[in-house]
Amino acid sequence: MIEQPHDDHFPRHLASDNFAGIHPLVLAHIAACNRGHAMAYGDDPITARVGQAFDQLFGTQVTSHLVFNGTAANVLALSAFARSFGSVVCSDFAHLINDESTAPERILGMRLIGLSSRNGKIDPSALIEELRRGHGVHHPTPVALSLTQPTEVGTVYSPDEIRNLADIAHAHGMGVHVDGARLGTAVASLGVSVPQMLVETGVDVVSFGGTKQGIMCGEAVIFLKPGLGADFPHWQKHGLQLASKMRFLAAQFEALLTDDLWVENGRHANAMARKLRDAVSGMPMVEIAFPVESNAVFARIPQDALDTLQRHTFFWPWNGLVRWMCAFDTTPEDIESFAAALATLARR
Amino acid sequence: MIEQPHDDHFPRHLASDNFAGIHPLVLAHIAACNRGHAMAYGDDPITARVGQAFDQLFGTQVTSHLVFNGTAANVLALSAFARSFGSVVCSDFAHLINDESTAPERILGMRLIGLSSRNGKIDPSALIEELRRGHGVHHPTPVALSLTQPTEVGTVYSPDEIRNLADIAHAHGMGVHVDGARLGTAVASLGVSVPQMLVETGVDVVSFGGTKQGIMCGEAVIFLKPGLGADFPHWQKHGLQLASKMRFLAAQFEALLTDDLWVENGRHANAMARKLRDAVSGMPMVEIAFPVESNAVFARIPQDALDTLQRHTFFWPWNGLVRWMCAFDTTPEDIESFAAALATLARR
Amino acid sequence: MIEQPHDDHFPRHLASDNFAGIHPLVLAHIAACNRGHAMAYGDDPITARVGQAFDQLFGTQVTSHLVFNGTAANVLALSAFARSFGSVVCSDFAHLINDESTAPERILGMRLIGLSSRNGKIDPSALIEELRRGHGVHHPTPVALSLTQPTEVGTVYSPDEIRNLADIAHAHGMGVHVDGARLGTAVASLGVSVPQMLVETGVDVVSFGGTKQGIMCGEAVIFLKPGLGADFPHWQKHGLQLASKMRFLAAQFEALLTDDLWVENGRHANAMARKLRDAVSGMPMVEIAFPVESNAVFARIPQDALDTLQRHTFFWPWNGLVRWMCAFDTTPEDIESFAAALATLARR
Amino acid sequence: MIEQPHDDHFPRHLASDNFAGIHPLVLAHIAACNRGHAMAYGDDPITARVGQAFDQLFGTQVTSHLVFNGTAANVLALSAFARSFGSVVCSDFAHLINDESTAPERILGMRLIGLSSRNGKIDPSALIEELRRGHGVHHPTPVALSLTQPTEVGTVYSPDEIRNLADIAHAHGMGVHVDGARLGTAVASLGVSVPQMLVETGVDVVSFGGTKQGIMCGEAVIFLKPGLGADFPHWQKHGLQLASKMRFLAAQFEALLTDDLWVENGRHANAMARKLRDAVSGMPMVEIAFPVESNAVFARIPQDALDTLQRHTFFWPWNGLVRWMCAFDTTPEDIESFAAALATLARR
Repeated sequence: MIEQPHDDHFPRHLASDNFAGIHPLVLAHIAACNRGHAMAYGDDPITARVGQAFDQLFGTQVTSHLVFNGTAANVLALSAFARSFGSVVCSDFAHLINDESTAPERILGMRLIGLSSRNGKIDPSALIEELRRGHGVHHPTPVALSLTQPTEVGTVYSPDEIRNLADIAHAHGMGVHVDGARLGTAVASLGVSVPQMLVETGVDVVSFGGTKQGIMCGEAVIFLKPGLGADFPHWQKHGLQLASKMRFLAAQFEALLTDDLWVENGRHANAMARKLRDAVSGMPMVEIAFPVESNAVFARIPQDALDTLQRHTFFWPWNGLVRWMCAFDTTPEDIESFAAALATLARR
Repeated sequence: MIEQPHDDHFPRHLASDNFAGIHPLVLAHIAACNRGHAMAYGDDPITARVGQAFDQLFGTQVTSHLVFNGTAANVLALSAFARSFGSVVCSDFAHLINDESTAPERILGMRLIGLSSRNGKIDPSALIEELRRGHGVHHPTPVALSLTQPTEVGTVYSPDEIRNLADIAHAHGMGVHVDGARLGTAVASLGVSVPQMLVETGVDVVSFGGTKQGIMCGEAVIFLKPGLGADFPHWQKHGLQLASKMRFLAAQFEALLTDDLWVENGRHANAMARKLRDAVSGMPMVEIAFPVESNAVFARIPQDALDTLQRHTFFWPWNGLVRWMCAFDTTPEDIESFAAALATLARR
Repeated sequence: MIEQPHDDHFPRHLASDNFAGIHPLVLAHIAACNRGHAMAYGDDPITARVGQAFDQLFGTQVTSHLVFNGTAANVLALSAFARSFGSVVCSDFAHLINDESTAPERILGMRLIGLSSRNGKIDPSALIEELRRGHGVHHPTPVALSLTQPTEVGTVYSPDEIRNLADIAHAHGMGVHVDGARLGTAVASLGVSVPQMLVETGVDVVSFGGTKQGIMCGEAVIFLKPGLGADFPHWQKHGLQLASKMRFLAAQFEALLTDDLWVENGRHANAMARKLRDAVSGMPMVEIAFPVESNAVFARIPQDALDTLQRHTFFWPWNGLVRWMCAFDTTPEDIESFAAALATLARR
Repeated sequence: MIEQPHDDHFPRHLASDNFAGIHPLVLAHIAACNRGHAMAYGDDPITARVGQAFDQLFGTQVTSHLVFNGTAANVLALSAFARSFGSVVCSDFAHLINDESTAPERILGMRLIGLSSRNGKIDPSALIEELRRGHGVHHPTPVALSLTQPTEVGTVYSPDEIRNLADIAHAHGMGVHVDGARLGTAVASLGVSVPQMLVETGVDVVSFGGTKQGIMCGEAVIFLKPGLGADFPHWQKHGLQLASKMRFLAAQFEALLTDDLWVENGRHANAMARKLRDAVSGMPMVEIAFPVESNAVFARIPQDALDTLQRHTFFWPWNGLVRWMCAFDTTPEDIESFAAALATLARR
């Protein structure tokens, strides 16, 4: 056993669900799958079983691929719609446009168009207006719409909202992508099934989160239409996303999908966020910025409170607000302790 | 615990070291590091300790970064030398040119030049001749030399051979990269230190293997010259290689570097390869194709033996030959059983 | 002589200065240079003389290169500042972001950031605010500012305005590019010298227009700082912009620079635009949209007038407005006839 | 009129057909088309007529586009077959792989595979062997075959040879491209029609040379199959190849196609090359290297003769040989004078 330094303590934060570790059931399943040799690059039985599990989850035969991280899932999913002269429309809050450096431009070779959004959600009329532009060969042609569910500010699209946006996109010949890095929180929040949210609404491809939903490393790209993304294995290879020991990505997803662990993780994180919202929303110095519909609370607090509070429990400032994000392992005590610290500051 | 299907057996093969699983010490250390929250994207104490471990290993202050797989390590390491009009010179046997799809062209935007090699090693005179070409702006300009140590056919460059090639490259203003996906087998084979092999010979950057050396997923990119690769964190991000839960990539490398586990794994695999070579080299139907200097045996066997033998223990055909590759978990019994199967075929 | 169809008439329009033909002095000089053989790819005496003419024009030793068109000039000029994780900031009206398809993303591999502009000009405070963002490796890093002089709506930056924006950009480590597709109209409009407008203000590189200033085909990229763009000949080659019979691009620029033909062409076009503005600004149905500072008039006119008027003299609608653009060969009679047609419509 | 320096003399060389100027009929037609305004970007009557002229030339309805130079024509033509994981197979002598810097990699994002060739021509068996490789997602997939007609060493494929290679390529799902920078010399040499050479043999797309066939600047890309290259106008735009004053590219091609000027130019250049070959082939110091089937003579001459001879009439050394290339304006006297100079050297 490797000796750990004494000062190596890892308190829980409210910074991000990717600060959390590996869910114990996921780690246990990695260990269970760690025996003997398996074909590399996904030609193993565990990966095959995960494919079937995704078919079952989506209620139809989908095509699923496992990649390393969320930026990769997004840009490789969008590759299915890539044209050299294309653009991808997303919200101005989208992870795709704010947090993925130049990966979209470099890997897809396309432009991103960030639409002004309300509460992180794309407004159908703004989308229609953008699609009315058009300028022949001189301007990029929109080829895909990318939604985030839940959005980057924790709001959730209803199935009707998704269907409406997808219909507009499809009417313009565009594909529809959903970035579901924290999809389980949306499923838990809406209480609808995955097919209701993503299949019946017409979505074409989903980035199905792993890392933020409780595993160590990995995301899935799920194509919901037959034939779509048929060349994905090639994109995965030259996109630096083909794991040789694929069985261990698969093992993590097998654990995550078993007994809906991913939704349970989301449900718990949502509950913690609501608990936090309830605890702080009466405080005079705290202004909740967006509806709390999943596992994040965005708030406006005084700047001088921020530093003190960050030392108690770390979190990120966010465009003049603060973001408090709960994870599968956030405890009620964490929330109570944090709210108490905030209350103390409020009383000063 | 997730139930495993009954038929889920994973016999050990001789196909590749990436068919093997996770070394128990590595898995145990992942588990040990799985507590509480840690800063994402590498700003955690485990990643910091791995950086120090690499400094110590290379005997100088290096800059190390952890990425997901070998293709990524290679192309992002080479990014340090990238010019829009450049080319990268490698062996015609190189993984870079044979097994990484169009990743080099797409990520680097450069051309690969595959030199005819002898036993997988680049010949200095062939390199010099290639560098004599040159055609102003009309032809790509060589900007980097990429060596594989050990080579893709299991041979090993001596430090003098590396130094000689590096000197030629440097004299032409080129950078020198070593693809060390299985570096531990070369270290074990040569009995030299890492600084002797890679620092004193003038190498600029190393792809330091993880996956094939016994971990679950991950490779390190090690820059050996101050300032080189200063923008790597950006390349890592848009290159789809920035793990959010970086601490678990780091944990794996911490285990791998502790007590030279990576070299021990290589030493064991080498011993198994030599045992295999010794067992089969007397057989009339087997012709050893390359010197066995690390963990692989390449041989020519009759085509009709191939199918039967593959059913006993899977391995890959390779350009008219067969490749038998040993891993950290290959046992003497595996080798004996395989050699016996081959001997039986030989007697038929 | 090739027979021309009878119906091949080419009336003058107000659509764009690239609807105009070749200035007679330019065509005459092409003919004068059409004798014998010359070294290809720019190693000829005419290209050398053009380099000297640009040195003289800019009052300092510049590095000039000739390319085929304006999109090429812009993206290859900006290559001097390209980093794989970079972004280029420009006005939301910029040709670069509206009229060059995905060339910036594909050739530069970077993101464009279009700032809200006033009268087509970038506001310093908007620039400063954009540069305050920043998000480490997660968000693209601004590496260059691109201004258009005159702007796409015909307004002109004063030297002080250029200097102010350039200072902000340089303070953030960014390069400064000027898209001068119609630069002569700005020089004529401001009555300042080229060094005053572009050198003393700190600009790094200029796309110096040819096609819209009266030649057949060609633009120049002028680097104003020593060493900047040293690799341009390579970019030009792989950027598909290295003319083999370069002497004829050079001949056109030699004619354009002789006796300031390019400024004279701009002065004339400006005068025609002012004449048009004066003629129509009193009409009740016409609302001038932007200050007329160079060779274009943007106006709001009733939709039903648009079609009739376009049949008289073709012009382009532009974002709910109309654009009337004058060229070196627009005549006072053209303007008078057009204004009369508009007046007739106004009376109906 | 711009004054020309006294020392500005342009003797004819044997360096390349792109050292030559503009054929007088081409220049005259540019002048004839230089009147009034025309729609930009190719929406003009001259461009339309050139499209019809190409239809007539190829004997079928083709899709033709005009671009600026040969590198652009090649890479944009090949874009029709581009897949992100693809490779393009060509001769190791191909302009595409030797003279276009990294344009193929950067614009197409694909790998080039240069096959060993005999006399510059691809050997069917070498092509078949290359296509037998294949390695799933790990290795690039061949998507196009690019032939040069005539080859870079002046040899000419027969229609049967083209058909044979095209059949092999098509059987592997690949497209077939012909780089015809000097196509007229091949037509003149073979005495076959364009449809016989390019349509009936199954070629998919042709780079139809302009610059080297006697115009000032421009190449055509001709798609021979319906629907192929339907997005070319977009590629042309973001590929920096959309001329705004397109009518002048078109005017040049109209002149070139009128009365088969391009073939006449080729016929003349071929005759001059044969004359040169005949004049020098008896000389003891001269060894003709390749069959002289078009407008170039490749020879081996003593190194000390090279310098003296280059001063008489400039030409390029070429991989240990010399290349003497004739143009539309090479005169019998040029050849006689050059041969005499060589004979004098031979006698020393």
